[in-house]
Amino acid sequence: MILTNNLTVNEQRHLAVGGADTVELAERFGTPLYVMDEAMIRKACRQFKQSIDTYYGGRGLPHYASKAFCCKEMCRIIADEGLGLDVVSMGELYTAMSVGFPAQDIGFHGNNKTEEELRYALECGVGHIIVDNLTELDTLNALAGEMGKNARIMFRVKPGIEAHTHEFIMTGQIDSKFGLALENGEAMEAVKRALSMEHVTLGGLHCHIGSQIFDIDPFVMAADVMLHFIADIKAQTGYAVEELNLGGGFGIKYTQEENPVEYDQYMRKVSDKVKADCQALGIDQPFIVIEPGRSIAGPAGLTLYRVGSVKEIPGVRTYVSIDGGMTDNPRYALYQSRYEAVCANKADAPRDQIITLAGKCCESGDLIGKDMPLQKTEPGDVVAVLATGAYNYSMASNYNRATKPAVVMVKDGEARLIVKRETPEDLIRNDL
Amino acid sequence: MILTNNLTVNEQRHLAVGGADTVELAERFGTPLYVMDEAMIRKACRQFKQSIDTYYGGRGLPHYASKAFCCKEMCRIIADEGLGLDVVSMGELYTAMSVGFPAQDIGFHGNNKTEEELRYALECGVGHIIVDNLTELDTLNALAGEMGKNARIMFRVKPGIEAHTHEFIMTGQIDSKFGLALENGEAMEAVKRALSMEHVTLGGLHCHIGSQIFDIDPFVMAADVMLHFIADIKAQTGYAVEELNLGGGFGIKYTQEENPVEYDQYMRKVSDKVKADCQALGIDQPFIVIEPGRSIAGPAGLTLYRVGSVKEIPGVRTYVSIDGGMTDNPRYALYQSRYEAVCANKADAPRDQIITLAGKCCESGDLIGKDMPLQKTEPGDVVAVLATGAYNYSMASNYNRATKPAVVMVKDGEARLIVKRETPEDLIRNDL
Repeated sequence: MILTNNLTVNEQRHLAVGGADTVELAERFGTPLYVMDEAMIRKACRQFKQSIDTYYGGRGLPHYASKAFCCKEMCRIIADEGLGLDVVSMGELYTAMSVGFPAQDIGFHGNNKTEEELRYALECGVGHIIVDNLTELDTLNALAGEMGKNARIMFRVKPGIEAHTHEFIMTGQIDSKFGLALENGEAMEAVKRALSMEHVTLGGLHCHIGSQIFDIDPFVMAADVMLHFIADIKAQTGYAVEELNLGGGFGIKYTQEENPVEYDQYMRKVSDKVKADCQALGIDQPFIVIEPGRSIAGPAGLTLYRVGSVKEIPGVRTYVSIDGGMTDNPRYALYQSRYEAVCANKADAPRDQIITLAGKCCESGDLIGKDMPLQKTEPGDVVAVLATGAYNYSMASNYNRATKPAVVMVKDGEARLIVKRETPEDLIRNDL
Repeated sequence: MILTNNLTVNEQRHLAVGGADTVELAERFGTPLYVMDEAMIRKACRQFKQSIDTYYGGRGLPHYASKAFCCKEMCRIIADEGLGLDVVSMGELYTAMSVGFPAQDIGFHGNNKTEEELRYALECGVGHIIVDNLTELDTLNALAGEMGKNARIMFRVKPGIEAHTHEFIMTGQIDSKFGLALENGEAMEAVKRALSMEHVTLGGLHCHIGSQIFDIDPFVMAADVMLHFIADIKAQTGYAVEELNLGGGFGIKYTQEENPVEYDQYMRKVSDKVKADCQALGIDQPFIVIEPGRSIAGPAGLTLYRVGSVKEIPGVRTYVSIDGGMTDNPRYALYQSRYEAVCANKADAPRDQIITLAGKCCESGDLIGKDMPLQKTEPGDVVAVLATGAYNYSMASNYNRATKPAVVMVKDGEARLIVKRETPEDLIRNDL
């Protein structure tokens, strides 16, 4: 019944995560509460590393995409596991640097980095700045010169592959705000320009084809396109691309119906393609970077809420209202995303009711989900929404002047606070 | 060309708001920057008050819906204009109390207020707690008794009117998480229960039929339904409802094509209906509260961004990338809302390009709008997105660890900071 194998039902009939009783967590830390399972996070990190060892001789590194879930403790765990980090803003880089994350293992992404961000990335000495466009390339070369630095870069390339997923989370095709197109020669122009620049060193190429993808083929096709481009670059300029960053986008199991691909299978097929292409094209096998974010943080998290009211509208719908909502999880409002929920204090009971899980915001669209199975619940019950580790805390807002929930990390049945709950004082701290 | 009459083009060819040069504001305060025009806010407040004076003999009060835009300075201005306040959370109430807003003019809304919120509302002595459901009614009566207080309440009633607007911002019909239904007797049951309670005083009724509505008829129909219910209550219980809160939902002009109703016309037609119904039904004319939020804050605000790159994809689309996006304005991502934009530093030039205004988030759906007319822009230009005063700052997130922009208030050509820009330090202040 339950989504992932770190979730169990204990003797009190309560849902437990990583051995910790979720009802006790709700009482101890309050609700809404984000709960992350450290063992799940570390296990996913190791699976990604292991698959590169097994299928590609260890000549690669997973970079955790911190936009999925970023805080100081998460950066510490990622560093401890020996993964690199993908950051997309000053704020994410600042968080990583604040815990001493090794800068050389950081890639700085974004379609529109500000000058302030580029300067900061150069100061920190990040491993690569992933340059999105020619304007940025020129700006970066000038800034690096001015600062007496050399900017090590990659280019974000649009491989022209469309992964079949929600329109709003689909990238890689030519109609995208991200990256340089191959088909009109823009990407090749950028490579040639970078190779001629004094303060920029081209370190590799990057692509990213979408999010929450359940099919290995588009990843393999993207690798193939990128390797042909690498061969073209070598033929036209003599330059051998050393590193190929294939991005992320691996789907996770949000509901029982979803069956994500095994990361091992992904890495095996992609590695086979890379090796075969390199041999056929007469190029060196590049160092491979992949960027899992959701697939590391997502399944490891759940959110605990307290039920405030249950509104049965006969013949229409039953609304179960909780003490959070789109402010801590805007993914239903944004993408009509689906989630599984469990009543944590009667987790062994059958989920034989069909309910709509409503948030407390003054907005009709503030739902966690429509028509979800759940145990019969009443005010005071604790509801766990599963697989919320990614794009929940990171997308949280203060809409309705809601305070952001606390985050706790569980490990071996013990819980520790890693992000304190916001207070009303926090909301007005910048008000004059 | 320009949306509202507080926007002008000055001698430098720059867009000016409330007499202040927006290009200078962008330089002085940085971008992204929310700019609010105090004169526009005060003018809208006065129009609403005036319309009640003119058409309903002053026996009513507009309550500003603070979820549209809430900060300390906005609460001060609303108090200074003599309006009441609609709050929906501890955070909004805390903000209002922090500047000494008169508690008796505050209504506390929400479909799932927590016990902590109800206690705080009772402590503050808010004018009305707008009770959503029977569970809340019982909780509130118990809490008030425990605290030695009397809770003055209204009930949120579903009048069964559907206003024709985006599905996600449509309320009032029976299939809603908000309020008590009329047709199944739930609302009447609540009234009777409240009248029998020791620690609760019923002060009135509330309804709200939706958002961004451009038609007066549904408001008139809702008033009619509510007055018939008031007559029923009098017939069944002898109790005379003193106050009728008709909610908000008045549409504003986001684009040139939209033509909002005049507030005056709204109040005239609603007042006529209330007076006629009261006479026909033999009931006293209630005190009327209306709750404009968007229509006070929305047109008064604009957001200034700096252009980072312009990506022309021939035959496909031109992306103009700015230094903000869905983190400061998630309304396109949430509702595909439309906005007008102006290049602030060449505001007199024709808007003869069709562009897509893209944010800087690592997410394809991070757009401010698709296919918008704009002047030809280049990196370094300042772009103003208009009518962003409501549901922009209030819905802002730290997604991608973006820092929330500053807010400045302009008046007579002068600007003052009212909310400081968040810093990277702010982002990690609660991290352990």
